[in-house]
Formats: sequence, structure tokens, C-alpha cells
Amino acid sequence: MTSTVDSAEYRIEHDTMGEVRVPVNALYRAQTQRAVENFPISGKTLERAHIEALARIKKAAATANAELGVLDGEIAKAIEAAADEVAAGKYDGDFPIDVFQTGSGTSSNMNTNEVIAELATRALKAAGSDKTVHPNDHVNASQSSNDVFPPSVHVAATSALINDLVPALEYLAASLERKAEEFKDVVKSGRTHLMDATPVTLGQEFGGYAAQVRYGVERIQSSLPRVAEVPLGGTAVGTGINTPAGFPQRVIALLAADTGLPLTGARNHFEAQANRDGLIEASGQLRNIAYSFMKINNDLRWLGSGPNTGLGEIAIPDLQPGSSIMPGKVNPVICEAAIMVAAQIIGNDTTIALSSTNGAFELNVGIPVMAANLLESIRLLANTSRVMADKMIDGIEANVERARFLAEASPSIVTPLNKYIGYENAAKIAKHAVKEGLTIREAVVALGYLERGELTQEQLDSALDVLSMTKPPQAR
Amino acid sequence: MTSTVDSAEYRIEHDTMGEVRVPVNALYRAQTQRAVENFPISGKTLERAHIEALARIKKAAATANAELGVLDGEIAKAIEAAADEVAAGKYDGDFPIDVFQTGSGTSSNMNTNEVIAELATRALKAAGSDKTVHPNDHVNASQSSNDVFPPSVHVAATSALINDLVPALEYLAASLERKAEEFKDVVKSGRTHLMDATPVTLGQEFGGYAAQVRYGVERIQSSLPRVAEVPLGGTAVGTGINTPAGFPQRVIALLAADTGLPLTGARNHFEAQANRDGLIEASGQLRNIAYSFMKINNDLRWLGSGPNTGLGEIAIPDLQPGSSIMPGKVNPVICEAAIMVAAQIIGNDTTIALSSTNGAFELNVGIPVMAANLLESIRLLANTSRVMADKMIDGIEANVERARFLAEASPSIVTPLNKYIGYENAAKIAKHAVKEGLTIREAVVALGYLERGELTQEQLDSALDVLSMTKPPQAR
Amino acid sequence: MTSTVDSAEYRIEHDTMGEVRVPVNALYRAQTQRAVENFPISGKTLERAHIEALARIKKAAATANAELGVLDGEIAKAIEAAADEVAAGKYDGDFPIDVFQTGSGTSSNMNTNEVIAELATRALKAAGSDKTVHPNDHVNASQSSNDVFPPSVHVAATSALINDLVPALEYLAASLERKAEEFKDVVKSGRTHLMDATPVTLGQEFGGYAAQVRYGVERIQSSLPRVAEVPLGGTAVGTGINTPAGFPQRVIALLAADTGLPLTGARNHFEAQANRDGLIEASGQLRNIAYSFMKINNDLRWLGSGPNTGLGEIAIPDLQPGSSIMPGKVNPVICEAAIMVAAQIIGNDTTIALSSTNGAFELNVGIPVMAANLLESIRLLANTSRVMADKMIDGIEANVERARFLAEASPSIVTPLNKYIGYENAAKIAKHAVKEGLTIREAVVALGYLERGELTQEQLDSALDVLSMTKPPQAR
Amino acid sequence: MTSTVDSAEYRIEHDTMGEVRVPVNALYRAQTQRAVENFPISGKTLERAHIEALARIKKAAATANAELGVLDGEIAKAIEAAADEVAAGKYDGDFPIDVFQTGSGTSSNMNTNEVIAELATRALKAAGSDKTVHPNDHVNASQSSNDVFPPSVHVAATSALINDLVPALEYLAASLERKAEEFKDVVKSGRTHLMDATPVTLGQEFGGYAAQVRYGVERIQSSLPRVAEVPLGGTAVGTGINTPAGFPQRVIALLAADTGLPLTGARNHFEAQANRDGLIEASGQLRNIAYSFMKINNDLRWLGSGPNTGLGEIAIPDLQPGSSIMPGKVNPVICEAAIMVAAQIIGNDTTIALSSTNGAFELNVGIPVMAANLLESIRLLANTSRVMADKMIDGIEANVERARFLAEASPSIVTPLNKYIGYENAAKIAKHAVKEGLTIREAVVALGYLERGELTQEQLDSALDVLSMTKPPQAR
Repeated sequence: MTSTVDSAEYRIEHDTMGEVRVPVNALYRAQTQRAVENFPISGKTLERAHIEALARIKKAAATANAELGVLDGEIAKAIEAAADEVAAGKYDGDFPIDVFQTGSGTSSNMNTNEVIAELATRALKAAGSDKTVHPNDHVNASQSSNDVFPPSVHVAATSALINDLVPALEYLAASLERKAEEFKDVVKSGRTHLMDATPVTLGQEFGGYAAQVRYGVERIQSSLPRVAEVPLGGTAVGTGINTPAGFPQRVIALLAADTGLPLTGARNHFEAQANRDGLIEASGQLRNIAYSFMKINNDLRWLGSGPNTGLGEIAIPDLQPGSSIMPGKVNPVICEAAIMVAAQIIGNDTTIALSSTNGAFELNVGIPVMAANLLESIRLLANTSRVMADKMIDGIEANVERARFLAEASPSIVTPLNKYIGYENAAKIAKHAVKEGLTIREAVVALGYLERGELTQEQLDSALDVLSMTKPPQAR
Repeated sequence: MTSTVDSAEYRIEHDTMGEVRVPVNALYRAQTQRAVENFPISGKTLERAHIEALARIKKAAATANAELGVLDGEIAKAIEAAADEVAAGKYDGDFPIDVFQTGSGTSSNMNTNEVIAELATRALKAAGSDKTVHPNDHVNASQSSNDVFPPSVHVAATSALINDLVPALEYLAASLERKAEEFKDVVKSGRTHLMDATPVTLGQEFGGYAAQVRYGVERIQSSLPRVAEVPLGGTAVGTGINTPAGFPQRVIALLAADTGLPLTGARNHFEAQANRDGLIEASGQLRNIAYSFMKINNDLRWLGSGPNTGLGEIAIPDLQPGSSIMPGKVNPVICEAAIMVAAQIIGNDTTIALSSTNGAFELNVGIPVMAANLLESIRLLANTSRVMADKMIDGIEANVERARFLAEASPSIVTPLNKYIGYENAAKIAKHAVKEGLTIREAVVALGYLERGELTQEQLDSALDVLSMTKPPQAR
Repeated sequence: MTSTVDSAEYRIEHDTMGEVRVPVNALYRAQTQRAVENFPISGKTLERAHIEALARIKKAAATANAELGVLDGEIAKAIEAAADEVAAGKYDGDFPIDVFQTGSGTSSNMNTNEVIAELATRALKAAGSDKTVHPNDHVNASQSSNDVFPPSVHVAATSALINDLVPALEYLAASLERKAEEFKDVVKSGRTHLMDATPVTLGQEFGGYAAQVRYGVERIQSSLPRVAEVPLGGTAVGTGINTPAGFPQRVIALLAADTGLPLTGARNHFEAQANRDGLIEASGQLRNIAYSFMKINNDLRWLGSGPNTGLGEIAIPDLQPGSSIMPGKVNPVICEAAIMVAAQIIGNDTTIALSSTNGAFELNVGIPVMAANLLESIRLLANTSRVMADKMIDGIEANVERARFLAEASPSIVTPLNKYIGYENAAKIAKHAVKEGLTIREAVVALGYLERGELTQEQLDSALDVLSMTKPPQAR
Repeated sequence: MTSTVDSAEYRIEHDTMGEVRVPVNALYRAQTQRAVENFPISGKTLERAHIEALARIKKAAATANAELGVLDGEIAKAIEAAADEVAAGKYDGDFPIDVFQTGSGTSSNMNTNEVIAELATRALKAAGSDKTVHPNDHVNASQSSNDVFPPSVHVAATSALINDLVPALEYLAASLERKAEEFKDVVKSGRTHLMDATPVTLGQEFGGYAAQVRYGVERIQSSLPRVAEVPLGGTAVGTGINTPAGFPQRVIALLAADTGLPLTGARNHFEAQANRDGLIEASGQLRNIAYSFMKINNDLRWLGSGPNTGLGEIAIPDLQPGSSIMPGKVNPVICEAAIMVAAQIIGNDTTIALSSTNGAFELNVGIPVMAANLLESIRLLANTSRVMADKMIDGIEANVERARFLAEASPSIVTPLNKYIGYENAAKIAKHAVKEGLTIREAVVALGYLERGELTQEQLDSALDVLSMTKPPQAR
């Protein structure tokens, strides 16, 4: 290890297990390097939002530690400044550890400790101080990976849910609601079991989609109390060993203020460190939204199917040529991308929930993979919501005439006649119409209901008005 | 069909598709019989709670219909009385249709309509009336399968969640909390990554389990607003066609009063009939609880592993011989049953969520399988909670001496020394202790920390008190 | 326990843990009764096929034990005779233990041992012998639950796959193939991305469905070598403790002969008792078939959608009224039931695979729930295959004229022109046709391709023949 | 678009939908650029192996087209050369399209067509030719995205399975087998239900793990016939429209030769384009292996738990400090990483299988997400296999004395006495031993079995030899 060449490219760092060669320009030290070498598995590293959350925790801890007399004030200030830089994303390249690492995220916690210690030490030195900052004794003071890494996921997820996903879902819902208003008088055939049913308006369908998206927002919000709960202060096993009195409350207050998030402390530290149920719950709600997206996008592509052999009730914007062999073909590509995103989120949810089995006694050790999947799912869902609105929903047009034509062709428009002639007679009319290729009106006449006076012409006219069939009784 | 023998065993019923032979004593009629013949698939029929919910909806609808002038009062009364009998479970044998039927549950809705129509007609006849009750025109008046069958699932699930599962979970949590109190001074080794960590008390562990179960209750409650929302009044496609004004509000008020459940009307009938997202959400929360049960039961059987080659920190009650070949062996059988229940609930959840893809346009047609799986999951989880408490938790005893022995053997009890000698020195002590088979105290001495005055005897004594390590700093 | 009444209803049995009150007429004894009391969870008991498999193993073991000198010949004969009766289903009511029991199935193994011991003892007594048969020492001789219960699942599953499911799938495939032949010249529009594509025949589509079902058979068969492998002879932990030399080979040979199944011995007994991977593999293949069923049934109900507002290319047989409110409506109910079955199988598969996590060291303890789910899945899939064929596929009719009309309306029939005028010109024609509501032929003329001589009339006629577009080049 | 600045940064390309601005140095053209803009979703692009497979198909198609007279020879040669460069990975940066794109992968197929067309055109120009290569008419000749993109996934997956995963699994199995041999006489307690059972050797356990891994190889191989089946030649909808006779056979033969893979043609092109069941099957087998990995790694970390409060039967190599707060702690990090990988693969499998629902009629449109997840899973599993072997298995050491000590402490070593004194007497001994803290030998004496002559000293000595209990009867 003394060759000139080597010393130009690597430097020697040490930890409690001995010496390690680290790239000479790396801000990280021995433990990060060990983890890089131990886990050459996926090439995937922590999500940006996750690094930011780790750094923000380190900053809050340094402040709290200084206030509570655990850390020297100058060192704490240096840590805070370094943490701010890391949070801002300036050193993401110094976080090279694979997602598939130790299940507690200790490697990534130590990576954060090492990078901040190095930055803080350099800054102190540059400022003329001879103090050095130790990754464990200073940056990690009053903390353990076990009460820092889990909170970092909850902080990142809470932020992504509140700041990214909810606004994106609301953006999509608003787009759908504008279409619901635009299409409120576009009458069309309802379909149940894929079969002709009584009429609805296209606006009612889009209103249903918007409501489904808004329920998604409600689901996320109902899970937030348990996602925003962070087990800071429990340290190694939940007992708070090696923390000063008051630390958990203070560090969480600082962190909540810094992030603007509704963070709260763990109500039971043993539950909170041994399990990541809050993340599973959040993922379950994302799964629900993903299935909602499947329904909405499947409906939309069916409504737009054709142009000539499908339902053709709406026109979806043309975005790109759809076939490398069939000229002129255009496909509902945003629907397809959204459905694939939904499938990914549902798979990610399986990974997240299953990682629950990776918990035993005082710690779950499946956290990094839960974090990576959850934060990816939130990101995918937020991006997809905006893409759906911008590239598709906003540009959808109704094929008004075809929609009305089909509404009037549905034999189920016989339904309002039940109250005059009963379900069984109405069924005879519907069956006769389908069999003979007649409209319901023609079948009523052909079967003699007017002639026999069982129905008046007025009753018939009023009963067969398709648009009025779409309105609730009180609104007619 | 005129032979004496046949007429003794079958009777002829008809519906809009023609005649059907029905067992002569059956209360149901043609449509039920068709469904029995069409779906010889699983042999599984509707859950009891589901039949009750269907009947209660029919009763409320009859009352509302009579009030709103849609139904003759005498007929309505007869329907109400018949519905009460069906709700009470007197005629479950007349509900023979397979769960795997039409996806809207129309067959089971018609089964309910037919049985109630038959009972009501008989009662009217017995009372001297010549009125007859029609399954569609009377029992189903102002309703469609599409706005009745989904609510029946939500009503049954809401009832089972509130009346069965939540009390059972609270019963289990209380059992765990009693043990948490009983074991609050039983010090033992914490374990993270399955490796020796700093001490906890057995009471803290049981307190964590109790908290996890109570979070499960909170999760269920947070989903109730969307489970207890019932789309009655939307009829065929959500538009409310063929309902009198005021019907949805009235029928839901009556049903809520009859069941004592916090039922509310659909906020958007198109969302509410096309999707069953509320059921998926509830199932997602059950999945979360199931994974919690896995964690708790895995921990318990590990804590009780042995008697001689395992951890042996607790004794789980002996319930039955554990081996057909190894004499005297006893196994943690309740833990195993509970974990298998958890696996079943997680699989049921997959079925339920996936059934979301069975929705298109105005209706989801995967409802019966969602209902069967959701109601089974609730039932399994409630029963298992009580079995766990009664057969296992209540009888668990701590192996106090072994627990303390292991706590003191854990090299991680070196952790409180960090603040005196730093993390790196403490690591040296721990490694020396493990390597040489020493206690931490012996290793401290052997490595000269007392001799060199880096630690005082007092500091060492205080630092190595395992019980005090389990207490949060403010409590010491 | 001495009251006359009690002694009339219960009898006292004992096991190694003491005395137990058992219903006086029960064939089972103490351990079964304990399990009945310990597991009041689901009400679900072992599948019929599973009880049969357990009994057949007991019979083979008795024969082998007698041959190898472990069992007295008279006792062995009595066990064999009793096992035959149990296998035949005469005493299923004496197998009352819940599926959710001890994870090894020890309770059900002992239930089998007890019932057979009781029957055999009675028979010996009736025949004048004073020998008694012991559940453990005789019926279970040379066995452990751990090497008997797992094989019982594999035997039951292998039998159900080979004797029930594969013939049912072939029955369904044959039905689809008959339709493929019947519809071989029914030309229709292909659809990709749900959008109009180049023509296919309805026969080609049905041929694709048949092929998919036949691949399902191939998938099952490819998994059989690992499903039909049974770990008999490993006893408690895989080492074969307490077995005579030659036992595993002999018992498996006898069992294979008795059942007619291609059973083989475990290649590694430690793998074979600690894991149930073969069952997971089989379940994975069922999942694949379930997804195939979803695709086929979704396609079919879409092809049959309408009658007036959908695709309407086929007519699915009318089986039952489809709506309690919309008269005359008929729905694709078999498709819906089949899709719900698929969802159930996919959920069951989750349960089965997840139960893998219930294995540790020498034994998996999630076997009963794996068995119940796997055997149910096979049963559901077999029944559904036959119901699909009998109630739906056999009766499907093509709407020949509508199908051809749509084929000719698809703008993608421009595709054969690529070779004459290039992809980009062909796209211009297709877009012009859709925009102006023209046929492709009309658009070709309108845009002057014939006039300019870029296409001859002959080329155009030949290129636009929709039926010839459905044939592979060599067949034209 | 004519400004100097713009022209320096972008160039104008066109497709059938009009003009598009493309980065001036990009090798791709209009359709790729449209897709880049349409799908700003995940940032994830095609896996390297996938790009290679696409390019190899283009090469084979060009050769076949030239041979069959569809393509000019010079153009074909240029395409082949360009495809070789793309296959080699020289232009991966020109494949910027998101995984979440059109579900057919048309965008990525066109990306490939465009890049190869551009490279080939440049090369022809450089060689003095004035021919230009068209993405659709030349590079995509006789192909459709629908019969090219699916095969590209199958080719990439077949290659990754055969060339990467199988060797990695065999590498891992060999490592386990070396340990099985090394530990073949290390006797230890078996554990079933986590409770003390009869003895096994550590070698038997490792032999079981090795066998499980080798079964994984067998599972992959059993699925290969259906993964290696590629639907080339079906073009748009499976009919082979616009292909010359003989094309499918020829292109597959060329591709098989070029890749060295056992590729075969689709047996039914309609099944093959409408479904991706072969990929689901492969993923199902990966899932099975993932669950195997969970079992093996869970066992290993439990066997290595401690050092002082766990089972401690093996020592797992120390790789990195395990805690940021507990000094000297070392954790089984490779086990944890492997278990997280397993969870990821199981989640990916959910995504892949669920994407089956994205198929309708002639095409599945969930292919890119299936590809990304499947190829990632294979890569993760291969890497993890090697990491497990290199970083962990190879360095595992047995704690021989502790293992034997525990074996002899297990009360289940009473089992061999069954044959002398019966199961019930043996149970009395075991219970007495546990209750009184005696060894089995001591309990036998204490209860008088020797004294009373029910057992001889010789029988006892021979029965209680723990190592001989681990050997099958024929081997003793």
C-alpha cells in the first residue's frame, strides 16, 4: 500500500475493524467503502429524497445535542452546515452504497455520518480550528442507525406524499373535473358487465374518475398520522440508551420545523423500531390508488377504442405513431404507461409488505428495500398523475353523436317502463327488440302496448328520453 | 314434467327466460335455481353475515318504498317480516348459490328477493290476503343488484369490523398489556439483526406487541369512513333510475338505525358502483395486521424456543403433544396456526385487490369473491386474536434467570461506556470480550481501562447495570 | 366425570399429556380432541383428497413395516383394512380438525393414526384377537408427521393434477379447438392496443386460446417431477431415525402402485422436509393458468359485448336473467365466475408461496394452509374448465356479418400497401380515410394513387382482400 | 426553428405525424424523441441486455430479408454492421426512452430502427453510396413491434438465465456443497417448530441448502422451452402479414446461431403475441428461488446468532461494523441483503404476473415493465448468488463443540428408545429430563428403566450416540 501510484488514487482510512483503501477524493471513509465492496448487487443507490432526509436528521440532532450539552457548539455548527449541503444534494455522488445492503441501513447511516464528519472537519480546519469531527461520537451522537434510518424513510415519505403526490393527484382530479363539467350533457349508454345498460352522461363517468382520485388523496391523508410518526430517540433498541433527557422531543421539534412536516414522536418505541407498519400502510394506500389508475385508464382506452371497430365514444389525443408496420395507427399510449406504472406500484407494494417478515425482536432489517420501493412508487405515481392530465385528459374530446346514438340503441332504456307494465313485460319488449333488430319504441308498438292502452304515447315519450334517465329523480 | 314422481319432487317456476324445475320445498324460485345449475364450482356459499346484510337492506327498502308511495303498505309489512326471519338466519339453507357466480351478485340478490317474496306471499295468504309478492317488482323495488349487492358487502364488513374484529383485537391487546405489566422488570438481552444488543425488558417487548395490535385497531378505524359508505339508491348504473325522490337518504337512515352502524350514502354514485376501493382499503389494513401477527408470533415462538437448544426466555403453555415420533416434544402450535392465518389473510387480500381489475365502466363484477374473502379474513383474524390470548398469551411465563443471564452476557452492554471512552475504545473491549470469552467487565479490566484511570470503578458499575439500561434517560 | 349423563356422551381418552374427554362415538382419541379444542378458528377441515392420501400412506407403511419385520402381520393387516376404509371416505366426519392447526399437520397425522388404530383395534377384537393397535407405535411406525404429512399433500396434489385438472384442461382445450375449426373462415378485425389492426379470423383467436390452455397442461407436467417427489422415510428431521433399512424405497413403491401415480423418493431429505418448494412451483403454474383464464374470459366477454353498444362479434349463450332492474339484460356470467376463480387462485398462490417463510431449519410449519389452498385451487380450476366448456364455449356463435364488416372498416387493412408505396404513404391513406370517413379503397382513389399509377387496380384488389390477410405468406 | 442557435442544438426530423426537434447529435430520430417527451415518468431505461437483444434481432432480420429478396444486399449489410455496434453497447446513450412507455414497446423498437437506420445511412454515405436506410421500410422490414419487441425480451431473458443465472446458482451450490462436506461430521441438534429435535449434522443442513439451490436450476431449465420460444414472423397480429414465405424459420435460425441460444419459433402465433405467459412462468421460478434464498439466509443468520445470546452454531465472516452505537457488534449483512433481494424479486414477480391483465385480443401491452422487472430479477439473483458464496458461505466456520453440546442437550434424543420401551414411556423420560434439568441418560436411570431391566446399558449407550442418530439406517 506504499506505492506512489496507489497513494495517488487511494487513501487509507480505518474503522474498528481495521484499515480500508478509499478513493482519494471520496468524502466518505472506511465503513462506506466496506459497504461498497460488500454489496455489488443492484447498482441502485438511495433515492435523492432519502439522502436529504438523513442529512436533515443529522442537522436537527446536532442542534439538539448542542443544546443538551452533549456536543461542543462549534462542532455542532459545523455539522449543521455540512448537513445542509448534503441535504441540498451537493454530494449525492458520495452516497454510492447499494440499496441491497445491511437491512438496518447502518451502512447508509454511517455513509451520512462519514460524509458530514469529513465536510465538517474540513470546514473547521479551513476556519483555523484544530477540532475534528468523528462520525460516531459526534455526527451520530445520541443516535443509532436503528432510530435514525427508519425515521429518515418516514420523513422522506411524508414529504413526498404531502409535497409531491397529493398535489399531483389533485392536479389530475381537477383535470378530470373540468372534463366532467364539459361532458355533463353528453348522454351515452351505461355499461354493466360490459353489456348495454341504462344511460349515463360522459360527465358522470369522468366525475366518477375524479372522485376516485380524490378518495386516493383521502386515503393517503388517513395514513399520514402513522407515516409521520418517527422513532427518533429510541437509539439501539428503543430504550433510548445513550441519549440525554429531552432529546427525542427536541430533535423532532427541530426536524418538524426544518421540514415543515407534521412529524410526531413514536408512541411506543419498541413497536416503532421493530416494525415498519406505517410504511406498509402507506404502500397499501398507494396500491389502492394504483388499482384506481388501472380502472380509469382501462375505461379511457376502451371508450376511445377504434377508430372504426371499437366503442369510439371519446377521442384520445394523438401523441405518436402507434405501429412500426400498420401505417396511421395511433394508440392510447399514456393509458398503457399508466397501467404499467400501476403494475409496478403493486409489485413494489408486495416487496414492501413482505419485508415485514424481515423483522425480529427489536428491529426490522428490511428497511432499505422498503424505502427504495416506497419512494419510487410515490415518485412514479406523482409523475404519472401529471402526465395523464397534461398529455391525455386535458385533450380528450367526446364523440357526442356516436355516444347518443349508442345510448338510444341500448335495449336497457326499456327500464323506465317497469313502473307502468312491470319487469316481466318490459323484458319481453327488450328481448323482442334485440331479436328483431328494432328500437325499444318500435318494439313497444309492435307488441301492442299502445294499442291495448297499457301505455299512453305520453308515458312512452317521457320514459324513453335518454338524457332524463341520467338524472337522479329529485333533479328531474 | 307431468309424471307424478316428478311433481312430488320438483315444482315448475318461471322467470323471463322460461320455465325451471325447482326442488318442491325450496323457498327460492327460478333465478336461484338457474344459478345453482350454472355455477357448480366451489361448493362455497355466502357467509352468514352477508345473508343477514342482504335481508336487512330488503327490509329497509320495503319500509322506505311504502313511505314514499312505491309499495302497498300490506306488502311492505310482509316483506319486512320475511326479511327479519331471513336476517335471523332461519333460512340460510335456501341460499345455495356458489360464491363463484355472476360478478355483480345478481344471482344472490335475486335469491334474496325470491326467498323473501315466497315467505311474504305465504304469510299474506295465511293471513287471508290474496296479494302476492313479486321478487322484482316488490322486494327489489327502487333497487338494482348493482346498488344492493355492493352495500350488502359493506354493511356486513362494517358490522364484522366494528362488532367482531375490533373487540377481539382489543381483547388480545389487553392480554398482551397484562403481560407487559407482569414482565416489566424482567431484564433480557435486546436483539437486533438477531445479534446481541443492549438490554430491554420482556415487558417492553410485550408492550410493543400490544401497541402494534392497537395500531391495527386504529388502522381499521381510519378506513371505516370509506367502508361504511354504501351506494344504495344508485340503482342500475348510479343515476338512480327508477327510484322515488328521497329514497337513498331514507333507506340508509333506516338501515343505519336497524343495524346500529355508522352507515353513510355514497358521495359519488358513479365512483361507488364502479369500484369497490373501500373494501380493498379495509383488506389492506387487515393485511397489515396479519403481518403484525406474523411478527408477534414469530418473536414469541423464538423467545420460547428450546427447551434446551433455543433462546428459552419464555415458556409457552403446553397444549398438545408435538410429535408423533419424538416423545415429550411440545411445540408453539398457536403461533403456527396464527402465522398460517396471517398467510391466508395476505392471500385473500391479493384476491380482493386484484378483483379491482374486474371493474369496467359502471360496475365492478368481482364482488362476490371480494365479499367471501374479506368476510373470511375478518372472521379468521377475530377468532385468532381470541385464541392467541386465551390459549397462549395469558399463560406465558418468563424464564427470569435465564433472561437476565443472557442480558449480562451480551457484549453490547459495553455501549454506555461510549460516553467515557468513545465508540472505538468501546469496540475494542467488546471484541476482546467475545474473542476471549470474557464478560465486558472482565475485558475492561483486562485491557487496563481502570488501571489507566480512563474509567472509574463507579462509572463502570453504574454503566454496566443492565436494568437501568432499559430505562429512558428521564426515568433513571 | 362420573355422572351417568356424562359417561353417556363422552369417554375418557389419554395421551402423553393426560386425560381428555372425547365424544363417545368418535373414532378419534385424545390428540384429535385436543386439537379440536385448541383451534376453533375457521371451521374449514382437510380436503377429501387429503384424507385419502394420508390413509393410503398409512396403508403402504403398514405393509412395508410388516415386510421389514417392524410390525406384527396381523396388526399390519388390520391397519391396511382400516386405512382402505378411511381412504374411501367412510369416516371423513371423524376428521374434524381445523386447517389452521399446528403447522406440521401433526394433529391431522395423529387424527389419522387414531382413527385407524381405533378401527383396526375394533376389527381385531371383532375377529377374536386380543391385540390392540397403538396410534404411534403401530400406525405411525417408522414414520413421523414430518415425513408423512408433507407427502400426503404431494400425493393428493399429484393425483388431483393428473386425474382431475389435466383432463379438465384438455376438455376445455378441445372445446376451444372445435370452435377454432368452426370459425376458421370468419374474418374479423384484429385489435392491438384495443385499436383497429389488420384482420384475423375468429378461428385464429380461438386457436390461440386453445393453445394457451394446452401450454397450461405443459406447465403442470413440467412441474410434476418435483411435486411427485415425496420425502417418506426421513422421519423426524430427514435422517431416517427409527426406520428400518429399505423402508423409504419400499413404502414409496407400494404407494405408487396403490395410487397409480409417478411418485419418487426425495433426492435430498433435508431439502425435502425443510421446504415445500415443489408445492409452490405447482401453485405458480396454476397462477399462470389462472391469468390465462383471465385473458381468455376477458376477451370472450368483450367479443360478446353489446348486444348493440359493444363489439358484438360473437354471441355467448344466455344462461340466466342478468339484471334485477334492467329487463331482458343477459350477461356473460360464466366469464365473470371464471375470472373470480382466477382471482381466488392467484390469492391462494400468494398464501402458498408466502408460507415458505414459515420454514426454519429441518421443517416447514405452514403445510396445512398450503395444502388447503393448493387443493382448493386445483379443484376450482378443474371445475371451472368444464363449466366454461359446457355452459359457454360449446354454445358460442359467431356474428359473421358484423365481424367481416368491422374487418373491412379497419384502417389498418392499408398495411399490405406498404410494399408498393412505402410505410409513409400508406399512413397518409389511413389517416385520410379515418379523417374523412372513407374506406381505405376510397381513400386510395381519392388521394390519386391509381391515377398516378403508383398502384394498379389489380394490386389494390389483391392487397385489400381481408381474408387473405389472415393467412401466413406460405399459405396464400 | 431556423435560428442559428437552435440549429446548433437541434435538428428537425419528421415522421408520419409531422416534424420534431431532435438533439443535433442524437442518432435517433422523430419517434424516439416523441417518446422521450411523452413519458417523463421514471428515468429508468431499457436494460443493457435488452438493447443487445433488439439489435441482434434486427441483424438477423436484415440477413433473412436480403436472402429472401425483400432487402437490397448493400442496405442489409449496412444494417447488420450497425446492429452489431448497437448490440455491443456502443450507443446505449441513444436509447433514452423510459420503461413506462407504450405497452407494446413500439417506441423502443422504433428507437432501435432509427438508430440503426441512422448509423447504416451514415456508413453507406461514408462509403460513397447514395442509398439511405429507412427505419420502417428497411430496418423493420418483415417485422412489427408486436413480433419483435416480445422476442427481444425472451432472447434477453433466455441469455441471462443460461449465461448468467444458472452458472451463478451453480457457483453458489458448489460453495454450499464444499461446506456440506467440510461439516459432514459436525453433529448438532435438529430443530423442528424451532424446538429441540433429534440430531443432524451441519453438513446435512448445508447439503439441503445446496440441493435447494440445485432444484432452482432445475426449475429454470424446466421453464426454458417456453421462454426460448420467440414469436418472430407473426408481425402485426400473428398472421405474418407483410412477411415473405420462410421468413420466421430463417430469422430464428440466424438469431439462434448468432446468440448460441436454444431459440425456437412460436408454436401458435396468436397465443404467442397476445400473451407473455412464458415470462410469467420464468418469473414464477425466480420467485421460488427467491423464497429458497429467504429460507437459507434466515437459517444461516439464526445459526450464527449471538455471539452470546443466540444459537451460535456457526460463525459468519465479519465484513463491516454492525452498529453506529453498539461498539464491536457485527451483523449477518449478506444474509440481510440477500433477503431484501428476495423480497424485491417477489415484488417484481407480482408486477410481471399482474401485467398479464394488460393483454387483450392480439397483443399484450405490458411488455416493457415485464422486461425491466424480469431482467432486473435475474441480474439481482445472479449477483447475490456470487456475493453469498464469496463473502459469506466460503468463510463460514462451525462452532463444533457448542453444536455437539446442544445436540446432546436436546430431549428428543430419547427418540431411539421408542423401539425398546414404546412412545409413551419415552415421553415420560423426556418430560422428566426437561422438568428436572437432567440429561436423557440421567432421566432413564432416575426413572428406573435400567434397574427394572426394561433397557440394557448397551441398548442405552447405542441408542444415545448422537452422531449415529444422524445416519440413515442402512449407513449405520
